[in-house]
This record gives sequence, structure tokens and C-alpha cells, in this order.
Amino acid sequence: MADYFTEAHSAEVVNGRMGHTVNPRLGLVMSSLVKHLHAFAKDVGLTQKEWELAIDFLTRTGQLCDDERQEFILLSDTLGLSMLVDAINNRRPEGATENTVLGPFHVAGAPLRSMGDNISLDGKGETCLFRGRVVDLDGTPIEGARIDVWSDNPDGYYDVQQPGIQPKWNNRGLFVTGADGRYWFIGIKPVAYPIPDDGPVGQMLHNLGRHPYRPAHTHFLVTADGYQTLVTHTFVGDDPYLTSDAVFGVKNSLIAPFIRVDAETVWRSDFDFVLTPIARAGTAAG
Amino acid sequence: MADYFTEAHSAEVVNGRMGHTVNPRLGLVMSSLVKHLHAFAKDVGLTQKEWELAIDFLTRTGQLCDDERQEFILLSDTLGLSMLVDAINNRRPEGATENTVLGPFHVAGAPLRSMGDNISLDGKGETCLFRGRVVDLDGTPIEGARIDVWSDNPDGYYDVQQPGIQPKWNNRGLFVTGADGRYWFIGIKPVAYPIPDDGPVGQMLHNLGRHPYRPAHTHFLVTADGYQTLVTHTFVGDDPYLTSDAVFGVKNSLIAPFIRVDAETVWRSDFDFVLTPIARAGTAAG
Repeated sequence: MADYFTEAHSAEVVNGRMGHTVNPRLGLVMSSLVKHLHAFAKDVGLTQKEWELAIDFLTRTGQLCDDERQEFILLSDTLGLSMLVDAINNRRPEGATENTVLGPFHVAGAPLRSMGDNISLDGKGETCLFRGRVVDLDGTPIEGARIDVWSDNPDGYYDVQQPGIQPKWNNRGLFVTGADGRYWFIGIKPVAYPIPDDGPVGQMLHNLGRHPYRPAHTHFLVTADGYQTLVTHTFVGDDPYLTSDAVFGVKNSLIAPFIRVDAETVWRSDFDFVLTPIARAGTAAG
Repeated sequence: MADYFTEAHSAEVVNGRMGHTVNPRLGLVMSSLVKHLHAFAKDVGLTQKEWELAIDFLTRTGQLCDDERQEFILLSDTLGLSMLVDAINNRRPEGATENTVLGPFHVAGAPLRSMGDNISLDGKGETCLFRGRVVDLDGTPIEGARIDVWSDNPDGYYDVQQPGIQPKWNNRGLFVTGADGRYWFIGIKPVAYPIPDDGPVGQMLHNLGRHPYRPAHTHFLVTADGYQTLVTHTFVGDDPYLTSDAVFGVKNSLIAPFIRVDAETVWRSDFDFVLTPIARAGTAAG
């Protein structure tokens, strides 16, 4: 291996400098990163000016981050990397409910509700009965499954984005299944909303001719002893942004029916969560 | 092309969302970036935990940047990307002096000196006579070439790193060649020094079993009308860090002789700068 840097062997020279006592997994990840980073620069013939723009973009992305805003996660989301990492680490057997991204708005500790409770505390939006079962791959009901649910309100904001405007825990709740594995509660038909687009990521989306919207969805975090954690959403099937989700979260199997029922309940959405036993976990890396 | 995200077609799905009116060069660069980023995550089977570490690393890297410190450039330097971009954009014909990285310590506006002047203003270090010629590819002397030179002092710091300790413009100067293309001035034999290693990049180097040192070098920025700008260093040949420069700046052709002469001048370093006419510019992209 060449001691000095050459354009032709650039990645090999960089990776050849790694010490012999480096953690093997770190060595593997970093040498692959360097290989792909250099291949990218070579493939496009990256100019000095473009390199400067990239340094500036990354710097501004880091400097916008604080306790409320994580612009690097937004960048990962909008480049499809978050969904890819989720997919790699959550391969599920045929018939199991698929994962999708957690998103930034989950709050641990949502209040425990009784089946049938209404989690819409601000009275806004079109009422919807959510119901279904939590079952094993063979259809056996799972007792004691915990269903943590959260969604935006019809203005397109989560409660944590509007403290003082929305009641705390608005459109959030925790439900625990009984022996029949069934759940049912009243919420609202969610609405589409834009991800924060006033920073470098929003600028990038604009320059790529992409919009910042996520199609309407309700978040579910479903856990049960002995089963893989399910992090998912259900999507409203008629949403115009379904095929252009800014963070690529939509999967065909996660589009739920939203059926108009009557004047009082208005909508109903049936969806079963099919959990994967831990023993059947996919071949996730690491 | 699939509308929804799949692990198998992740990059195609993301790039398929680009608008039709996107700037063609931006579209090319971004789609290559996404392709390589996704291939990297797939090749190593990036775990959720590793993704979180990466987000945290990038965030801290951005937040350390300010007017004095550019940790993302340091990251690019230590991953060999800065040298690669320099190489891609400054391919030179056989016989021409090669480029290397500019580094963060160049200051525009160095005082004009006369040939033979001593640029070491703090009197520290081992005196060295630097001399040589600025010539065309065919050896013709170039008149009016501007040689901007800068180096650290023997404590391993540039003047701008020690305001109030080192005199302003210590070990810096601008020289202009006459009809014979010759230059000569008194400076010092430079010494090795570490790049700033108290941040995320230093942590990365440590974890990769790499040290933060750059081998001893003198910077030169040589310009002349009608010729490509030459950004380079000359290196001291006996430096122990020569084959392990933390930023990969060393090229074989840039190792200059440092010859011990006598008690007064101590060292002499002869080096000719061979400039490339603009018409003979390499096939740099963009």
C-alpha cells in the first residue's frame, strides 16, 4: 500500500492508516464510510466550490440543533437514511406488521386510558373510532400488549409543539389489551403537516424540487413481553402526499381504511397489529 | 419505480422524488450522494445505535465550529476528502509542481519582502535559507511570480494561533521574482505539530488508532499571470510523521532537501516551483 496520498488509491491510503488495535466493528464501518465517501467525490468530480458548500451546509445543520430541534435527524430522514436503518434493523417475517420511523414527537409516559376513551382533549377534528386486535403471527390474541398512540391535531401540530395552546397529552394515550387482544378508542382522523422547513434541510428540499409534507398518519408503539417492539404508523389512504412523504415513512401495508360511519362517530379505522416473537427476529445487523 | 420506500430500492425511491426542474448538476451530485450513503448503510448493516452515534457526532462537530475553529473541515481533512477534492481539481502535467491542501492558517495580505529578507521575527528556531526558481514547464524562468510563504515557529504554532505571543506576520512573507525567476529568503526549518484534537475529530482519530500530527512543512502559495495557482508545501525529509500525516498532505515530489550548511545559516533548502500554464490545465471537473 502506498505510504503517500494518491488520487487513484485515496481510500486505501486513508484506511491503511488505521491502527491495528482498532475496534473491529468501528474499523469496518469507518473503512466502508471512507470508501463510499471517496467514491462519491470521484464519481461526480466534486469541485472545490461544491466542497465548500457542503462544509457550510453541514456546519449550519449542526448549529441549528438544540433541545427542541434536531436538524441532522431531519437530514437523515429526508435522505431516506432513517427509513433504511429502520428497515435493515427490523426485517419482519411475512404477515407481521411492518415498522416505520419513530419520528421526533413521541413522548414517553402517556397516561393509561381505558378502552373506548376519547384521547382528543381539545375537541378539534373529525372523530374517529380506532379499533382492531394485537395478535401473534398465527392470529392468536396477545393479552397485556401496550399500545402507545400519538397524532397531530387537525391544525397539523402535536401537543408538544403547542404547549399552552393544546392540552397536555392531547391525542395521546396508552392502552393495554385484555385476553381477546382487542383495542378500541376514540381519536381523530389525522391530517398532513410539513416537517420544519425553515433551516438547511428545508432549503435542500426546495432546491431538489421536493415539498416538506408528511401524509396524515397516526403513530403506534406496540410492545408485548416476548415480542419485538413495533414502531409504526397507520396512514389515511386518500392523502395526496401518500406517495411523496418527505421522510419516506409510507409502506403499502400500513395504509389503513378510514370509513365514514355516521354523524356522531364520523370515521372508523380498523387495523390489526401482528407482532413478531423475539425468537423470530429478522436478520438485523449488530 | 416504486412509489413507496423499500429496503431493496431505497436510493432509487429517494432519488425518484427529485423534481424535474432541479439544477442538473445538483441533481447529479445529490443522487450520487444518496446512492453512496445508502450503499454504505447496507454494506455495513448500520445499526440503530451506530446511527444515533453518527447523528450525535455530526451535531457536536457542527456545534464546535465558530470563527476560529472549523471542525467539519478538520473532519474532511482527516478522512482524506480535502486532499481528494484538491487532487480531482488540480491534476497537473508531468513535471509540474503538485498541489496539496491550503490548510487553515493562510492569511491574505502578508507583507512584501525583498529577496534575502529574514521572515523569522521572533528569533526562534534553526535558520534556513530557502531558495530556488519559479519556472514554466519547459524550464523558462517566470518573472513577476508571487511567492506567499508561511510556516509555524519552532514551538509548533502559527503566529495567528498565538496573537500577543508571536509578532504579527512571524514566519510569513510575500516575495516577487525578477527576470531570472529566482527567489531566496531566510526562514526557519519548520517543525511537526498536532492538528486541534480536543474535539470530535480528535476523538475519532484516537478511536481509529491514529495520531493528530502533521510532519514539518513550509507552505507556499505561488501565483503568476497566465499560470494555474499553485497551493503547496515543502516537507522536511527526515520527519518521523512523513508517512502518517494526519491530513494526508504529503506527496513524494514535495519532499525538499534540507541540507546543513554552516554554523550561521545552519540549513539550506532548494526547491523549484514549476507552474502550469492555464491553457495546460488538467481535466478538473466543474
